[in-house]
This record gives sequence, structure tokens and C-alpha cells, in this order.
Amino acid sequence: VIIVVCLNPALDVTHHVDAVDWGGVNRPRTVRTRPGGKGLNVARTLHALGVDVLVLGLAGGITGAGVETALRERCVPAAFTPVGGETRRTFSVVDDSRVTAFYEPGPAVSEEEFAGFRRGYEQALDGAAAVVLSGSLPPGLADGTYATLIETAAAAAVPAVLDTHGEALRRGAAAGPAIVKPNLTELTALAGPAASSALAPPADRAPDLATAAAAAGQLRGAQAVVVTLGPDGLLAATGDGCWRARATAAVTGNATGAGDAVAAALAHGLVLGRPWDERLRHAAALGAATAAAPVAGEFRRQDYLDALTAVTVEEVR
Amino acid sequence: VIIVVCLNPALDVTHHVDAVDWGGVNRPRTVRTRPGGKGLNVARTLHALGVDVLVLGLAGGITGAGVETALRERCVPAAFTPVGGETRRTFSVVDDSRVTAFYEPGPAVSEEEFAGFRRGYEQALDGAAAVVLSGSLPPGLADGTYATLIETAAAAAVPAVLDTHGEALRRGAAAGPAIVKPNLTELTALAGPAASSALAPPADRAPDLATAAAAAGQLRGAQAVVVTLGPDGLLAATGDGCWRARATAAVTGNATGAGDAVAAALAHGLVLGRPWDERLRHAAALGAATAAAPVAGEFRRQDYLDALTAVTVEEVR
Repeated sequence: VIIVVCLNPALDVTHHVDAVDWGGVNRPRTVRTRPGGKGLNVARTLHALGVDVLVLGLAGGITGAGVETALRERCVPAAFTPVGGETRRTFSVVDDSRVTAFYEPGPAVSEEEFAGFRRGYEQALDGAAAVVLSGSLPPGLADGTYATLIETAAAAAVPAVLDTHGEALRRGAAAGPAIVKPNLTELTALAGPAASSALAPPADRAPDLATAAAAAGQLRGAQAVVVTLGPDGLLAATGDGCWRARATAAVTGNATGAGDAVAAALAHGLVLGRPWDERLRHAAALGAATAAAPVAGEFRRQDYLDALTAVTVEEVR
Repeated sequence: VIIVVCLNPALDVTHHVDAVDWGGVNRPRTVRTRPGGKGLNVARTLHALGVDVLVLGLAGGITGAGVETALRERCVPAAFTPVGGETRRTFSVVDDSRVTAFYEPGPAVSEEEFAGFRRGYEQALDGAAAVVLSGSLPPGLADGTYATLIETAAAAAVPAVLDTHGEALRRGAAAGPAIVKPNLTELTALAGPAASSALAPPADRAPDLATAAAAAGQLRGAQAVVVTLGPDGLLAATGDGCWRARATAAVTGNATGAGDAVAAALAHGLVLGRPWDERLRHAAALGAATAAAPVAGEFRRQDYLDALTAVTVEEVR
């Protein structure tokens, strides 16, 4: 089983409105509600790949119960530790021209509540093939939370994939996970703007590996760093070398969902023990297929198969 | 006990945002979730007045469970008949200058589901003092639904108060409820624009009762018609005569909540058997106190007591 840790899950509500009347009353044409938060996208992608998965996290209140129901309806196994606060909603209004999002804050989590989560986590690690730690931390949890969970996993010989941002990412990397998967924005926030242009240069130039390596140095401790570059694919710095993977056709669409699909594919490849070039082909193809789908955490199998043949993976020296 | 029928309840979610970034990502300063829909406002007002109340209605899905939880937290007794569809949310974004609302559609209700509701309703009528039927009908229920429920109540000798709009209001009135309580917009929609100016003339002129009577004729069958005029108070046409009730100080604020408070007060006065002028004083004061409160279904007791002395009730001939 792959454990997916989602400490700050969400219920994603999306309203499609023909033309928003700002300041007025709108009656949305369609309403979609689904489990959200990066970890739940990862779990749904793994589940769709046929991988045995278990979501562990924190959930509370009306919305927490809603997240649990929504996962149950999708047959994704989950065990949430209850918290007194209210799980957050993300609310998105989509009209023809744009998306306006409202992100509620997550519930404040107490030490006792988190201690309850850790007990369940330690038990679940027994026999787990890998753990994916994904998304933001709710209020009340320290920046070192993921680092601690990675160390606990390492003590149980379970490799970890980390996908988060900021200080939680830097400290998590230092705990030695198998893979960290920042996107370009997250890496730039840690390593400065020079990292962006080095990692995602104009189409006719190769990535500037010296600067990229310096940027990746901000994630010292991680055994491999895979940076998602949006439409430009992936760049991976691993113990076995550096690779770049790209879809030959332009990829546009849902960037958040695509990054979560890449994290899922990397965990999947890790568990299967595949060589890095294969892992990256799988990850880039799954990311492209998910970006093309209207909803994060979902992809069409045919899009994935098509993308697999359209991905180039090249070693970068 | 007063039964409050709420066939299309809602979970009201309000985000307060300092300055909305339309097309961007917003992180609301405060998030409030509460039971919504006109019937639930009526029930909460009656509960706050110390009246024994029972909410009956239809609820489904994640949001339906949320409505039930939110009522339980507020100690308002409720028995919802489950439906397969998803109870609606109303989502409001409040910034410094305006309110933008998104109203989800209610769940489609099947004949079998409504038959289940009716069985519970008929049982609950035994021993009830009155029934309030309030708000919109969810998709799938016919315009004659309230009329049928009023006839069922009459057969059990339980008087009914009806607060809805459109054809459901017109047909409900024809079934002979004790009171119908349209607002000016709802009455104008049925009776045409002349009704508005007749019922809410400039401050220096009396209501044009001939036109008002013609407008009220659209609600033929009702034993009394009470029209809420917003800041201008109430106008009542009853078997005992016509009255106008107004707060002497200007009332502004939450018009929806105020109308629901008026419906609650009218049901309360009906059950207590108070004369019409007293009922209207109570209703106008409760409406004013509720309009002044930030949240529909709530009022400060002192605001209500202050408003009671500031309401004038005059017979109109």
C-alpha cells in the first residue's frame, strides 16, 4: 500500500456561471463538489492507476465529513483523525473568461490532535511500500512537521515523496526523502529568480545546470529532486544523473492537477523500482493527461497512452 | 408546537474578503456557515422566542447532512426526509462595497421522496398549533404543493402561514391559509407594477387601498394578507380590517431575514390568539430588530424591545 498523507484536505466546490454579476445574485449553471487538496488528488490518481492506497489525514466539522463522504463515494480508502476545527472549502467561480477562487483557511490543529494522527501513521507505516506527503500544513502545525514524518517513515524503512512548499519543503528535504517534487514557482521562492531562467530557459537553449544545481542545493538532503516546469515538462536531478522529460505536443490545462499526477506517478515508479528514465516518462505522460482533463485527480486512459508515446526523455549532462 | 416546513433548505456560506480579486485567488478573512433558506430562518426566530418548534423538510447529500448538523448545534428540532439529490448551498462573498451571491439549485425531488415527507407531515400535524410554509420549492415539486399541504393542515384543523412567491403563492392562497405574507416584490410580480405604488406610496400619502385591494385579490382565498414593505414596515388586510405598522426610526439592513422574522412573529401571534394590531406590532418590531442584526434568523433582544416602543400601528380605512 502507498500511504498518502493529506493534513489539510479540502472540499472543492466549483460553480460554472455564464457571466458573473459581481455585486448581484448569480444562479450557477453547474455545481461540482469533490474531494480536494493536493494529497487527495494524488490518492485519486494512484487509485485510478489500480494502486492500493490509503489516505491518512486530519478532518473536522461539516466539511470534514463531506470530504470523507466524497472519498467513500469514489472508493478511495481513507482514515482521518478527527479535529475540532472545520476542514476548509475551496470555492471557485468559473465563467467564460476567468476563474475566481476563494480559499478558506484550514482548521487550527492542536498538539493532541496531531499526536493522535501520528499514532495512526506509525501503525500504517508497518508494511507500507511508500508514503507521499503532499500539500500545505494547516494552522498550528510546525514547519518541521513533514521532516518528522519523513524521519518516522525512514525508521520504518518506508521511502517518502514530498510535495509541498516554503520552509516545510526545505526542512522536509533535509530529512532525506527519496524524492522532492517542487514546481518552478516553489523552487524559485526558495532559490531566487535566477533559478527560474536556469531551469526553464527559452526553447532553443538547454537548462543551465550549474544554476539549477545551486537551486537544487536549497533542497539538500533529498535523494532526488524533480521539478515540474508546467508545459515544459519535468527536470530531474537524481543520484543516477539528470534528465529532462517533455511532451512533444504542447500541454495546457490544469497545472495543479498535473503536478499532483506527477507526484503520484513518481511514487508509483519508486514502488515498482523502475529506472529513472521510465519513471519520468510515466510521470510526464500522466501529468499531461491530467492537465488535459477538466478536473484535478482525473485523467482519460487514452490520453495517458497517447502521451506516453509523445514524451521524450533525454539525459542532461 | 409550530411546524415549520422547509422543502428547499440551504447551507449558507459567507466569505468576508477585504477587497475581492476577481479572476484571482482570494483568502477570506472570515468564513461563516449556518443553516439557511427562509424556513430555517423562521424556525430559528421562533426558537429564539422560546416557542416549541419542529422543522420538517427534505435534505440530501453532504450539504443536507451539514444543514442537519448546523441545526442540531443550534438546538432547533428538525426531522428531514432524506432525498437522493444534494441540498443546495448559498455562497455569498462580502467585501467592503458589495455582496455577490451564488445560489445553487436545490435537489430534484421525486414523487416517492415527497410522499415520504407527506407521511411525516400528516403525523406531525396531530397536536400542532400552526404550520409555517416558507421559501421556494425544489425542482420536481409542482406549483400546487403548498396548496396541498395547506389543505392537509386544514383537515387537521391546523392554521397555516404561507410565505413564498409566484404561482406557488397564488395557488397556496387559494387553499385558504390563515395568513399569506408576500413582500412588495413578490406581490408586484403577481399583481403588476401599479400595486407597488399603491401599497408603498411616497411618505406624505396614504396607501391607495382600492389598488391594494385589487392586488390582494391576486391572493384570493387567504384569510389575511400581510405585505412587508421593507423599511416602510407592514400593510395588513385582514377580516378584522386593514392596518399599517411602521418603525418610527428608519430600518435598514438584511431584508430577507427581516421578512422571515415577520413570518415567525405572525405565526406566534396567531397561535397566541392576539388581536391583529398587537400581532403587527410584534411582527414589525421583530422584523426591524432582525434587519439590524448581521445574520438572518437572529436578533438582539434589546433591539426587539426598543423597536416595540418605536412601532406605530394605525388602522387604514
